[in-house]
This record gives sequence, C-alpha cells and structure tokens, in this order.
Amino acid sequence: MKGAVLFLISLQVLLLSCQAQNRPSPAIVIHGGAGTIERGSMSPEKEVAIRADLQMALDTAYALLESGETALRAVEAAIVMLEDSPHFNAGKGAVMNIEGRHELDASVMWGQDLSAGAVAAMSRTRNPILAAMAVRAHSPHVLLAGEGAESFAREQGLAEVDNSYFTVPMVKQRWEAGKRTGEYNPASPADSKFGTVGAVALDLSGNLAAGTSTGGMMFKKYGRIGDSPIIGAGTYADNATCAVSCTGHGEYFIRLGIAKDVSDQMRYAEIGLEQAAKHSIHDRLSSLGGSGGLIAMDREGKIAMEFNTKGMYRAYKNESSEEVLIYEAP
Amino acid sequence: MKGAVLFLISLQVLLLSCQAQNRPSPAIVIHGGAGTIERGSMSPEKEVAIRADLQMALDTAYALLESGETALRAVEAAIVMLEDSPHFNAGKGAVMNIEGRHELDASVMWGQDLSAGAVAAMSRTRNPILAAMAVRAHSPHVLLAGEGAESFAREQGLAEVDNSYFTVPMVKQRWEAGKRTGEYNPASPADSKFGTVGAVALDLSGNLAAGTSTGGMMFKKYGRIGDSPIIGAGTYADNATCAVSCTGHGEYFIRLGIAKDVSDQMRYAEIGLEQAAKHSIHDRLSSLGGSGGLIAMDREGKIAMEFNTKGMYRAYKNESSEEVLIYEAP
Repeated sequence: MKGAVLFLISLQVLLLSCQAQNRPSPAIVIHGGAGTIERGSMSPEKEVAIRADLQMALDTAYALLESGETALRAVEAAIVMLEDSPHFNAGKGAVMNIEGRHELDASVMWGQDLSAGAVAAMSRTRNPILAAMAVRAHSPHVLLAGEGAESFAREQGLAEVDNSYFTVPMVKQRWEAGKRTGEYNPASPADSKFGTVGAVALDLSGNLAAGTSTGGMMFKKYGRIGDSPIIGAGTYADNATCAVSCTGHGEYFIRLGIAKDVSDQMRYAEIGLEQAAKHSIHDRLSSLGGSGGLIAMDREGKIAMEFNTKGMYRAYKNESSEEVLIYEAP
Repeated sequence: MKGAVLFLISLQVLLLSCQAQNRPSPAIVIHGGAGTIERGSMSPEKEVAIRADLQMALDTAYALLESGETALRAVEAAIVMLEDSPHFNAGKGAVMNIEGRHELDASVMWGQDLSAGAVAAMSRTRNPILAAMAVRAHSPHVLLAGEGAESFAREQGLAEVDNSYFTVPMVKQRWEAGKRTGEYNPASPADSKFGTVGAVALDLSGNLAAGTSTGGMMFKKYGRIGDSPIIGAGTYADNATCAVSCTGHGEYFIRLGIAKDVSDQMRYAEIGLEQAAKHSIHDRLSSLGGSGGLIAMDREGKIAMEFNTKGMYRAYKNESSEEVLIYEAP
C-alpha cells in the first residue's frame, strides 16, 4: 500500500515535470525607441538612469509572467513604467506638438483572439496604454481618437492629469529652441526623437501580446497620427505567428504595415521570426528610405530586435538570459 | 528613297502597335458598400438610381484612364462622384454619429511609390477623398485627424460645407428612430449600413491605385475610427501586387489588416489575386466573425470582388466588359 502511494506520487511528480517542460517559458522584450543614439552622445548619468528604468520595467513584467499573469498584463505593466519614466517619448517625457502641447497615442493587441485596442491624440489621460487596454476590453471598437477617447477613458475611471504633467525640462528646452530658430522639420528623423516605447511578451499559457505607446513627432501639427496606434503598422500580435512593437518614422511604418508584415511573412512565406524581422526592417523599410526598428517574439519565445538606426533602447529577459542594450552591436 | 521612307514609316507603325499591345489595358472597379442587401428589399426606383450613380462613377473614371490619366486620378474622380451621391455612406448621405453629426474618413494609396494619404473624423470638408489626396501629395504625413485635418484641407483650398450638407432624409429618419427607441447598437452589423465607397484602378502606365471613403458607423461615439482611413486595413496599393479597397465591419478589417493581407499573400505566398482575396474574406474575416467585402485589382488588370454579406454595390469596367452588380451571384 505504502509502495503504491509512493509510486503514484512519483508518477504525479513526473507528469508535472513533463507539463513544466512542455509549458512555454515566459519571456519579455521591451524597447524605448530607436534613433540616432551614439556612444558618447549622452552623459554617463543619463545612460545609467535610462538603463535602470528599462531594467525595472523588464523585471516587473517578467515577475508578472513568472507568477502566471497574462502576456497582456506584462506588456501593460512594462509600458506603464516606461510611460511614467521621463526618459522616453511616451507619457511623462513625451515630445510636444507645434502648439507646445502633448498628444499621446497607444495600442495593444492580444494574440489569442486578435483583439486589440488603440487610442490617438489623447491629452489628459495619464497612461495612454491603460486607455488602449480599456478600449480592447470594454468597447466594441478598436481605435478611438481625441476627445472621444478621453471621454471613454474617464468613464473607465482612468487617472487624468493636466497636459503639463507630461512636460519634462529637456523636451521643453528642445521645443523652445526649435520655435526660436525655426530650425525644425517634423518629417526629419534628426528632429524626431524616436523614443516611442513598446513591449512584447509570451506567457506561461503560450499566449503572445504586444503594445506600443508614444508622444509622436516633435513639432507635429495638423492632428498627425503616426504608426503607434495603428494595429498592423506599429503593433501586432497573433499566437499563430508572433508579437511585434515598432518604433521609428511612423509614416513609413504605416505605408509598409511593418508590424503585420513580420507576421504575414511567417504565416504566408512560412519563414522564421528572425528572417522575417530582418526583411521587414533591412529590406522593406530601408529600401523605402524609412528609419526605425522593432522588437518581436514568436510563440516559442524566440526574439528579434532589429533596427536600421544607430541605436535602439531595448532589453529582454527569459529563463536563460537577460540584457539591457542601447547601441548597435560593436 | 521613297521605298526606304515607306519602310521606316511601316517599321514605326509596327513598333507603336507592339508598344500598344504591351501597354496594360486600363481597368476600374468601384464599390458602394457591402451589407444586408437582399433582392426585393429596396424600391425599383432606388435600385435604378443607385445603379445609375455607380455607372456614372464607373464611366467617368474609365474615360479618364483611357485618356491617359493616372489610376490615382481615376480613383479620386470615382470616389468624388460616390461621395456626392446621396445613396452611399460617404460624403453626402453619410450616417450620423451618436450626437447626430457626420464624421467622415477617407484614404488613398498610390502603388508606384507606396505613397498614401488619409483623413479621419472630418466634419466640414465637402469631399474627404480630396483631403486624403492632398495629404498624400502635399504633407509629410500619412494620417491626419479631426480639426488638424480640417485646417490642412482649408489651407489646401478645399471646399467646405456646413455639417448639415451631408444629411439626407433617409439617414436622418433612421437616426431619429434609433434615438427614439434606443434600439441601436453601433457594433451590430444589422444597424450599420456598410455603404462605404471605394475604387481601385490600373492605368495605361501600369500603375495601381486604391481609395476608400466613409461616414463610418451609424450612432458611433467616442471618436471611433474604422478601417477606411487605415492604410493596410481599408486601403492598400502596391504595383508589385495589387490595389484593394474594403467595406464592412471596420474593427475586424483593422484586426486582420485585410487590404494588405491580400497584398502580402501575393508577395509572400506567391498566389494569385483571386485566391488571395477569397482567403482574406472567406477564411480570415469569416472565421473571426467579421462581415464585409473588398474589391481588388492586380497589375494585369485581373479583378476580385469578394464579400461574405448578402450583397455589395459594385461595378467594373475594362476594355472587354463592364457590369454593375448589387446582389450575390444567383
């Protein structure tokens, strides 16, 4: 009898460990934007601060995944922290439009059912990614813009702030200098700090999610909407293929539908994540003259972090390794 | 000497006729929306009027193509006429949002260089497709929304109207009935008249273009933006693959990036237009529970008109045939 009980216990331990082996390992990749980020161009203190904020977002999201939370929840948590950080062009620290105000965009997508939510041109909701999450979960729509998006977010009980909450001194100085000299061009990559933030994650249940948040282009006018709130351009997630979040010169990402371009190569050309991500950035985006990058993850937790700029703030963590990176590979 | 001249003239005639044979034949396809359009559900007078407006848009666009105008110009001309017609949900005749106002979206894309322009939530510009054309041609951006889009259109000298210009009696009656009874659901296909209009064309130079214009969903609120102004979702054009314009329940078209889904199948799976269009509508869209349709054309002038609804207002014309259709094939 005792022998039989021991045998059954052993069998259960064996089964559980088999399940654990088949269970996907959680993984997270985040980005804080791609652009002209060269070694020596930023103070050591600033680099330390940026790395610390990326690390904190990474650790928080990974801990959630390990505890069994969904990939969507991990993406949300990482992006909230990057929005709250003053170092990135999303939430606090966002760039300013031609009128000196902040207009924020965000989007999320859930790979299990292809549900998605996005908001554009928000000016009062503290964390636009939470508004995008609420659109996905609680509205029949995918994309809400402007005052309508703001009303919806308020009904959902999301925190509001004065538009000046998003202003940080460095951005204000850049804005004032640009206004003074008139030497700015919203379409010029040099004048656009591509500090958009984003995250992609794989959870213990094997589900993928992706999210992106941005303040858009410095000096933007005319209610310009970039790729970040556009499902298929800045963000995409499909359990059958991959999760993708993009950063860069948004107009090119829209014209090429870069996020879903990666997914469609996996679906229709049956190639792997890395090859697909390289093709989207280094062949399609580069040949059209666009600049930027993307992070992506497939359902096995493989990751891609591709960019055709000098650098991209990026970090990843899975069960075997983690890294926080800024510049190109040496 | 005379013989030599005659020989040279003959040679030139021969060369010109060879060129003419290699020159693509122009072709145009237009749509006026997909939805629950059943035989006998509309008065004979209304059906005649709708067919006449589709025919006029078709003939105008085709004549432009024959005269050597670009596919982009033909798409623009067709959509302006459908916007001006009171029978479709675009421009005059557009549905009303929850507040009883019209908010219009439009987009265009040029297959030669993948340039694109789009506008969302416009309320004063008479022809939103002209605003989208101006964004493509005269702004560094792809997508402008709301007041910013309106300011840009005004700077471009586009005609403005009072918002009530877009109101037609039948739409107003439906809106009033919905408000009175409260029996409307913006997310329900039955309450959404999918009268979005669109066009795709191939010109004598072998260039493809696509465009789409809509009043969106009846009773929409919260600044909802559908797929029509989203490049990759409602509209796509790439000389290397095809031109596509969609109509239907926009949220599904965004989540699946339907317009570029057709193009990506041709690019990455190397399948033909018809098979790709069928897969996007009957496999991808239907399996997610979405309804609607699309028109598409490849660089050889082959056309596809697929929908999973009861009907779709549609018409095509090329050098060998033309047809104006409403219902499913019998």
